[in-house]
Amino acid sequence: MNMVKIIEKKKSGEALSQEEIKWFVEGYTEGSIPDYQASALLMAIYFKGLSKEETFYLTEAMRYSGDTIDLSSIKGIKVDKHSTGGVGDKTTLVLGPLAAACGVPIAKMSGRGLGFTGGTVDKMESIPGFRTALEPEEFLNQVNTVGMSVIGQTAHITPADKKLYALRDVTATVDNFGLIASSIMSKKLAAGSDAIVLDVKCGDGAFMNNLDDARTLAKIMVEIGNSAGRRTVAAITEMGQPLGKAIGNSIEVIEAIDTLKGKGPEDITELALQLGGIMVYLGGKADSPEKGLEMTTKALKDGSGLAKLAEFIRAQGGNPNVIEDYTLFPQHSLAKELKAEKAGYIAKIRAGQIGFASQLTGAGRATKEDQIDLSAGICLCKKVGDEVAEGDTLAVFYGNDEAKISAAVKEAEAAFEISNVPTEPPLLIKEIIGL
Amino acid sequence: MNMVKIIEKKKSGEALSQEEIKWFVEGYTEGSIPDYQASALLMAIYFKGLSKEETFYLTEAMRYSGDTIDLSSIKGIKVDKHSTGGVGDKTTLVLGPLAAACGVPIAKMSGRGLGFTGGTVDKMESIPGFRTALEPEEFLNQVNTVGMSVIGQTAHITPADKKLYALRDVTATVDNFGLIASSIMSKKLAAGSDAIVLDVKCGDGAFMNNLDDARTLAKIMVEIGNSAGRRTVAAITEMGQPLGKAIGNSIEVIEAIDTLKGKGPEDITELALQLGGIMVYLGGKADSPEKGLEMTTKALKDGSGLAKLAEFIRAQGGNPNVIEDYTLFPQHSLAKELKAEKAGYIAKIRAGQIGFASQLTGAGRATKEDQIDLSAGICLCKKVGDEVAEGDTLAVFYGNDEAKISAAVKEAEAAFEISNVPTEPPLLIKEIIGL
Repeated sequence: MNMVKIIEKKKSGEALSQEEIKWFVEGYTEGSIPDYQASALLMAIYFKGLSKEETFYLTEAMRYSGDTIDLSSIKGIKVDKHSTGGVGDKTTLVLGPLAAACGVPIAKMSGRGLGFTGGTVDKMESIPGFRTALEPEEFLNQVNTVGMSVIGQTAHITPADKKLYALRDVTATVDNFGLIASSIMSKKLAAGSDAIVLDVKCGDGAFMNNLDDARTLAKIMVEIGNSAGRRTVAAITEMGQPLGKAIGNSIEVIEAIDTLKGKGPEDITELALQLGGIMVYLGGKADSPEKGLEMTTKALKDGSGLAKLAEFIRAQGGNPNVIEDYTLFPQHSLAKELKAEKAGYIAKIRAGQIGFASQLTGAGRATKEDQIDLSAGICLCKKVGDEVAEGDTLAVFYGNDEAKISAAVKEAEAAFEISNVPTEPPLLIKEIIGL
Repeated sequence: MNMVKIIEKKKSGEALSQEEIKWFVEGYTEGSIPDYQASALLMAIYFKGLSKEETFYLTEAMRYSGDTIDLSSIKGIKVDKHSTGGVGDKTTLVLGPLAAACGVPIAKMSGRGLGFTGGTVDKMESIPGFRTALEPEEFLNQVNTVGMSVIGQTAHITPADKKLYALRDVTATVDNFGLIASSIMSKKLAAGSDAIVLDVKCGDGAFMNNLDDARTLAKIMVEIGNSAGRRTVAAITEMGQPLGKAIGNSIEVIEAIDTLKGKGPEDITELALQLGGIMVYLGGKADSPEKGLEMTTKALKDGSGLAKLAEFIRAQGGNPNVIEDYTLFPQHSLAKELKAEKAGYIAKIRAGQIGFASQLTGAGRATKEDQIDLSAGICLCKKVGDEVAEGDTLAVFYGNDEAKISAAVKEAEAAFEISNVPTEPPLLIKEIIGL
């Protein structure tokens, strides 16, 4: 095969064959196809798109480009959950324990990630003693005994996706549905669960800004998952404003604990119960998503979700006393409030800006080498729809660096929009695809 | 500036500014912008095009990416001529001496090139003793004293174009009008002549297959030249069949000499007289192209063109006796004829296939490292429109390698189309743009 001919073919709008896609992915991963040919192909794909079949072939080629995880030694139907990424998204830390409490085995591989805050792995590491670098056997055993485990991504999972994603990032070829969908799904399929719940974030703080785009992406991913024999469901959910009130690392874990105590913000509580309910259903522990929702609701109310969280933290070496004593988390030394300049109703809290402000506090990484301040972040005091008086605190900014916090406050100011007329909170779950 | 933003901008269809284009060309040439970003931009340009202004900015940026030639010490209006490349194109070797004999200073920089045959420099080197690596001063002096000089391209002319062209070649981004036009014109402008005659080849053996494409390219190049203050004229000429009858290196030089003797094929004779006439007009030695044509016609008839060729060969160290004694050229040891399988009229001699056959004889390079057999090539015995009897010789193949010649004959067989009905020879000069 010849890479120039493959680029030419895609450039002219023809579909590539499975053999061509596989040859490209393998050659690019091993280095025999150079970056400059890969980026030309990616740009041609941006303009000419990928068919359903091509997207599936690309996903499969990337999925098998490195190690794949074998979860067969775990009893039951393993259900994975993935979010396309949003601001304040600590859903995994709530629905994981709830679904596990309902009997669904949760064997999750999570990333650190760049951006607004750390990834799930960073957040978990704000719990003293918590280890995310488990040996494979330890990981599998823990799911069998405790029902839940979360580990960091190993270097050997989907190297093709890692390499291609890094290239897309520096060649302006990130924003293509087929490329995004295949990137996400190759990792999910390699990670080995039997069923997948996708949380496709939609709005200002998400990669997909509007419902149409979110729906397109969700449908492609559900198709890929089902084509690969994995039952896949996608929920399109609100990311116009941040999810919950805490945006950071330790403060998000604290909010997740609060939520499992029944004291969390409405939106994160509802989202965890609903998506957790779908997981319970896909995991074969309930006959319908509605029954699943009943079960996660019960697990929240009777404290079995919270108990599962404690068990899970202990199993991975963390100190479970954090659940009762939040002072055990890394502590910030500084706090600064942002006040409302006028009375009215919160019309918007632009998630993108709040997310960037959170990164400025020190809660997120701009480059892979950056150190995260696990105690830093933002707590919203108001959400969209809330009434405010002039001078009310809109948000509190935490961290350990005066300059960083001031920069964050400045960035966040413009994120809030106060209207004279009452505003409805946005619809949390906009659509569910694949149920 | 930021390369990702520049790619993004072009990808979304926006025009790049002069500063952005200059920054890209400079950064890419010096190596601070990597190939993979350049190829992504090139593919975005393929899909979104370049405006007139962008094409001009790109040309100017590449023109000044290395050395530019200063011809100001040469008296008179220097006129350059460039062909977009065809099969059997030895026009420079005929019109150069004709225009020089009419008083137009010809200071030409030529390439070696890949493809069907060598470039002008290779062809000239088939003359024993001929040197194309002159010192700049030697080159300029010769134009002032003899009226004509041809040298090989130095390494320091338009390095940006060299690097970008090599990248386009391996990333399927060659075929874009703005990129082709800026590549050609950056070199022409850097080469320093005051006026430029472009021979845009059109047909099976040329990069531009049809008249519309050739016209588009010609117009863009004429605009660039004029925008840069260089009077530029483009002729769109036939390249459905090879030009003249000889395709090779020494045999093309011999055909050029024959043409200056008044014994050349009709098409090459006419083309050299016409384009040469335009050069004489642009060079200020005639009041109109028609007068210019009269002058080149006279220079052909009275032998002053041939005398100029002899003078030029001698000045560059070549043996001018080749003009009378063709045995002084490198000699082939083998010749093979291709015969007509039926009687009729020659309807087509596909230049592309004949060109490739010529390369197979050893007359052209497939890679830069290949050695050329200067004696090898093809002589056509018939041209389109000619009548043939069964068994007539259509072409003779020359070289020094039995296997290569056989492969060439085999390749060339399908190039000939013989029809039962008489065919008109194609129109040689289809359009002239910019006069």
